[in-house]
Amino acid sequence: MAEYLWIDTEKARSYCADLFGSYGFTSSESRIITDVLIRADLYGIESHGVQRLVRYHDEIVTGMVEPKSKPETLHETAISATIDAKKAMGQLVGVQAMELAIEKAQKSGCGMVTVRNSNHYGIASYYTEMAAKADLLGICMSNSEAISVPVFGRQPMLGTNPIAFAMPAEPLNFSYDAATTVIPRGKLEVFVKNNKPLPDQWAMDSEGKPCTDAALVLNNIIHKLGGGIAPIGAHKGYGLGIIVDLLTAILSGGLSSNYVNITPGLNGICHWFMAVDYGIFGDKKAIKAHASTFMRELRESRKAEGQERIYTHGEIEAEIMAGRINGQIPANEKTLAEMKNIAEKQGVSWIF
Amino acid sequence: MAEYLWIDTEKARSYCADLFGSYGFTSSESRIITDVLIRADLYGIESHGVQRLVRYHDEIVTGMVEPKSKPETLHETAISATIDAKKAMGQLVGVQAMELAIEKAQKSGCGMVTVRNSNHYGIASYYTEMAAKADLLGICMSNSEAISVPVFGRQPMLGTNPIAFAMPAEPLNFSYDAATTVIPRGKLEVFVKNNKPLPDQWAMDSEGKPCTDAALVLNNIIHKLGGGIAPIGAHKGYGLGIIVDLLTAILSGGLSSNYVNITPGLNGICHWFMAVDYGIFGDKKAIKAHASTFMRELRESRKAEGQERIYTHGEIEAEIMAGRINGQIPANEKTLAEMKNIAEKQGVSWIF
Repeated sequence: MAEYLWIDTEKARSYCADLFGSYGFTSSESRIITDVLIRADLYGIESHGVQRLVRYHDEIVTGMVEPKSKPETLHETAISATIDAKKAMGQLVGVQAMELAIEKAQKSGCGMVTVRNSNHYGIASYYTEMAAKADLLGICMSNSEAISVPVFGRQPMLGTNPIAFAMPAEPLNFSYDAATTVIPRGKLEVFVKNNKPLPDQWAMDSEGKPCTDAALVLNNIIHKLGGGIAPIGAHKGYGLGIIVDLLTAILSGGLSSNYVNITPGLNGICHWFMAVDYGIFGDKKAIKAHASTFMRELRESRKAEGQERIYTHGEIEAEIMAGRINGQIPANEKTLAEMKNIAEKQGVSWIF
Repeated sequence: MAEYLWIDTEKARSYCADLFGSYGFTSSESRIITDVLIRADLYGIESHGVQRLVRYHDEIVTGMVEPKSKPETLHETAISATIDAKKAMGQLVGVQAMELAIEKAQKSGCGMVTVRNSNHYGIASYYTEMAAKADLLGICMSNSEAISVPVFGRQPMLGTNPIAFAMPAEPLNFSYDAATTVIPRGKLEVFVKNNKPLPDQWAMDSEGKPCTDAALVLNNIIHKLGGGIAPIGAHKGYGLGIIVDLLTAILSGGLSSNYVNITPGLNGICHWFMAVDYGIFGDKKAIKAHASTFMRELRESRKAEGQERIYTHGEIEAEIMAGRINGQIPANEKTLAEMKNIAEKQGVSWIF
């Protein structure tokens, strides 16, 4: 298994900002992208943190991501917008689209924004938590390169297609963010980096048969040889993945998962952002207090034999972040080697 | 295993309408309730069809369902409403709430209706398909009596909390309807009726340990002894179940799953209905054509070894219905015995 080294959080932030600056992003754009990335490492979601830098680097230098791109609004109503990201960095159009959804929710009760022609945008919960911070309910989805096969299929047709949902509560917001597949691609990469086998039934080989070899599955995905990651709950997760593609790709007129990252130089990832002022349903204080009570009741419910704690979503991440935000984040030695290599290529100083 | 007998679909409809009339529902109300129930049997979803009649009977005669109740709108905006069902039959407030959501979507682009103090409303897809028939996107959710335990827990805190989603497409709409648990309670009842063991890891006993004894699990649920049905994908389905409770119970000011069917004479089930005019995002014809292409591509994608067909959601149900709508539906012999017994109690003629 690969070794983990701890790096200073502020240094990681500074390195990322310098790196993104080197590609031509403005300093405020670089700060936004960096904030989304580092948030993942602060939350303990290694798969979506600095370990993604090497992929972002490749996507930027090959023109899949265009640093100078300005997203364009194609359709707009009081409660909706359709945005063509024009190959912008996913984090930038993501923050812009959720800000628009929040503004619409504050004015009209609800804002729904569908986005096409984008790129990977990091953790979806970053955006839903923007809505929760504005005392709104937030929903966010993204399609992605097809790596999940339909029930009874062998051809990847759907991405990991995560769903995120945040609801204000005390002392901690409910913040759900999960792939509709048993694992996201980033976690598959972590299995490969750590040289660990996949649990049974988590993935299929190129003929559609169960397979535990993480490196083989990842290689099949990269080279589009068939097979991939299983959806959660068979036809249930398969259908949830379709729903994500409908709201992201079909409503925006973009590429469904099975066309993402097929054309050279084009990712074409699509997103969905939604904010709802829950005050349109009743007294906000009463609703928030009720949500808080329900979360507490879940956490305080009786534990299974041998278990000491029940969590609500977002709790583990908040606790990990509390210990890291003014301290250090872990980085796999392979990730650090990749980061050093990128720094050299981009002429960015190596500060670790 | 129990025997299945085939009964005439129109006779079943006539029996149900007579039966609901005997409880004091008007003839148009009885027709609505009957239509939702029979649709489940036409779709091959036995768990939500006439096999539920004995539970509805008990709920009506014990006062959990009040046939004379008139639901009240508590809050309303151009895009939202909060309804107190006042113990009405779930199917009646369900149709009323989805009609309201559809009307709002047609006027304002989107309609969201949250409902409290209701009862079981049958298959959720009945309501989302009302939206699809009006050329809208439909979403519907319901909480229910807690029968699913949180990850690391042993106390049922969440219902099966199904999510339904429908999107217009040709030649067939996409129509998703699935519990956020591995099976709904109705399917657990079918396992018991057929005296079949549950697959491994589908359910937990009263100490939170895996259990395959369907009758024991159902008995534990009925007598609130602990344990229950597992969520799909562990923390993923557990979180989806929470989301359903937030939109149904928390926004409506109703009872969360862990309080449903706790107070004698009160179910307190809560629902969520949503309709969206997808034309607010772009040209409707183009969006619908794109959805249709995507569904076709999924169905036509490469099959796993030994498989001949890949389905999209709603396809199996539509095919089963085509063979039954002018013919017969199957009824378990135990269900028929229950139906005969209810007919005698209610003075309704037994026509099978």
